[in-house]
Amino acid sequence: MKKTLKPLINSQLKKFVSKSLKSSRISKFAPIIGKNIKEFVCRDGKRIRPIFFLVSYQAFSKTKKLPANIIKTSLAFELLHDFLLIHDDIIDNSNKRRGKPTIHKLLQNQLRLDASNSKNLSIVVGDIVYAMALEAFIHSNDNKKVFNRALSEFLCSTIRTGTGEFIDVINGLSSIKKINQKQIYLNYYLKTSEYTFIAPLLCGAILAGANNSEISKLRLLGKNLGEAFQINDDLIGIFSSSRKIGKSVLSDIIESKKTLPIHFAYKSASKKDKAFINKCMGNSKLKFNDLKKIRNIIVKTNALSKTKNVLYSHIKKANLYLSKLNLSKKDKEFIRTLMFSFIEK
Amino acid sequence: MKKTLKPLINSQLKKFVSKSLKSSRISKFAPIIGKNIKEFVCRDGKRIRPIFFLVSYQAFSKTKKLPANIIKTSLAFELLHDFLLIHDDIIDNSNKRRGKPTIHKLLQNQLRLDASNSKNLSIVVGDIVYAMALEAFIHSNDNKKVFNRALSEFLCSTIRTGTGEFIDVINGLSSIKKINQKQIYLNYYLKTSEYTFIAPLLCGAILAGANNSEISKLRLLGKNLGEAFQINDDLIGIFSSSRKIGKSVLSDIIESKKTLPIHFAYKSASKKDKAFINKCMGNSKLKFNDLKKIRNIIVKTNALSKTKNVLYSHIKKANLYLSKLNLSKKDKEFIRTLMFSFIEK
Repeated sequence: MKKTLKPLINSQLKKFVSKSLKSSRISKFAPIIGKNIKEFVCRDGKRIRPIFFLVSYQAFSKTKKLPANIIKTSLAFELLHDFLLIHDDIIDNSNKRRGKPTIHKLLQNQLRLDASNSKNLSIVVGDIVYAMALEAFIHSNDNKKVFNRALSEFLCSTIRTGTGEFIDVINGLSSIKKINQKQIYLNYYLKTSEYTFIAPLLCGAILAGANNSEISKLRLLGKNLGEAFQINDDLIGIFSSSRKIGKSVLSDIIESKKTLPIHFAYKSASKKDKAFINKCMGNSKLKFNDLKKIRNIIVKTNALSKTKNVLYSHIKKANLYLSKLNLSKKDKEFIRTLMFSFIEK
Repeated sequence: MKKTLKPLINSQLKKFVSKSLKSSRISKFAPIIGKNIKEFVCRDGKRIRPIFFLVSYQAFSKTKKLPANIIKTSLAFELLHDFLLIHDDIIDNSNKRRGKPTIHKLLQNQLRLDASNSKNLSIVVGDIVYAMALEAFIHSNDNKKVFNRALSEFLCSTIRTGTGEFIDVINGLSSIKKINQKQIYLNYYLKTSEYTFIAPLLCGAILAGANNSEISKLRLLGKNLGEAFQINDDLIGIFSSSRKIGKSVLSDIIESKKTLPIHFAYKSASKKDKAFINKCMGNSKLKFNDLKKIRNIIVKTNALSKTKNVLYSHIKKANLYLSKLNLSKKDKEFIRTLMFSFIEK
């Protein structure tokens, strides 16, 4: 179904964005905003969030059919992601996203601006995309009580993701030795689990009429799945290639991201290697050879296997909560396959 | 009633923000975010937007009573304003807002950060405040159709304000001679009228059950009122004192804002005065004496009286649409008094 959902989401996303830009008349007032939002939002992506929302809705719904208003609501989760990416790219001063220039880089080139002005404009573009996400959410349910609950969850996930992003920036400015494991997990939960898994799973289930006990289990499933996903992402961020991840493979180290593999490596590293890690973290002149040395330290300190063990333990927990859900064996197996398709590379 | 509404809004705002921060657990995860949002949002302000929302609701409602959920909804308009101010202050690199440091200045001092990192954190703080605004909007109406319509209006106003802000930055980078009157009006409409008057008036009326014909008249009333308000604000921005406006009286010129008085002055100025205006616009080293010279040019070119004439014509139009509303004479008189209380200084 993942194969059929992605093209459906893509085609609906394109239609929705065009319609929204037209109805608010942005495309008339400032065509450059509309053009860039359309191009950015329609770039190829995994569509994890709308897919998990739709799958959760379908699993808990009695009819097993996906109504048009629910498909439209799924777009809210993709647009929420886009809004967060636009602001994240400003904050991290990133040049590339999904293999193409970030919004502020696009505006910088198109309008021949300096970096600061193009970032300022991108703040506003992000804000607009978030309002569009909420437009996509409006028709999610005709029952006002059910709607209120789902929208509250959606908004709370935005607030928590913002808080995670805030903590991420603060952690990025700290020395690696000052960050403990608890802080890293809190950050994973806030900046990734909340909007990538918890909100899509919960909103899907709430809108389909799931009860509170199911919602509680889903929350824990989403939390663990998000942590596993982020740890996996951090490993990919260091061990994959720039081509594969659509941005520089050096960026996590340049941005001094306090990820679990780096944390484990630093804790067990020799004095010399500790100094080397410290020298690299946040260094904008980092070279690929430096990254190779860091990879080496991560492997030889067993940080890689430790990180993978934590990842597996989170997957195991996510699996446990999945098995406890009051769903058919078929539905659970389907969600399990979906979970793994986004984590195991 | 303005006198009774403002303290009501202030006390409800304080309660709502504390409750929201507690329920999303921000104050636990990152206390510094909660502390600054609370302090910023509770600063003394005119509360124009929630007041106009409440007054519009009351005028169109049958019961004339303000229900608790409607008072809560009014906070959404104040929080929308706060969110826009936080992002606006980053964009304009402003140090002061409502007589106190802007959010990014607060964070810079509290966390001893550089300007760039504190601005990055403030982007996220603004995003969080917008999500809180929407939380305040959720319970505005139990009728889902009416709610959808009001929320759509609220979101559309965010999108248009963002577009206005975008155009404002672009205009700020242009030379004064390249900006025409039409562009200035479009900017006034998008960045001020939409969220300051149109959305509050329309949402209040929609939620109270007003019909489409009334809504159309209110839209034109709000548009003209917003334009008058912004022109008045631009005049104050140049001719008032820093103490009165809560930020530097030099800022509009330093930020190279293409306001109507500057536009009229430039068009009629001598070659020498044109060169002087050009030298001042966007000049971060502007002195108070330079501003005094600009004030002089605005007066001697008749730009001041021209601007005032435009302002009066917008007030006249706003008055015309007000008189056409299907409201009691008493309600109309009340709204008229309120309009003038925010414009005539």
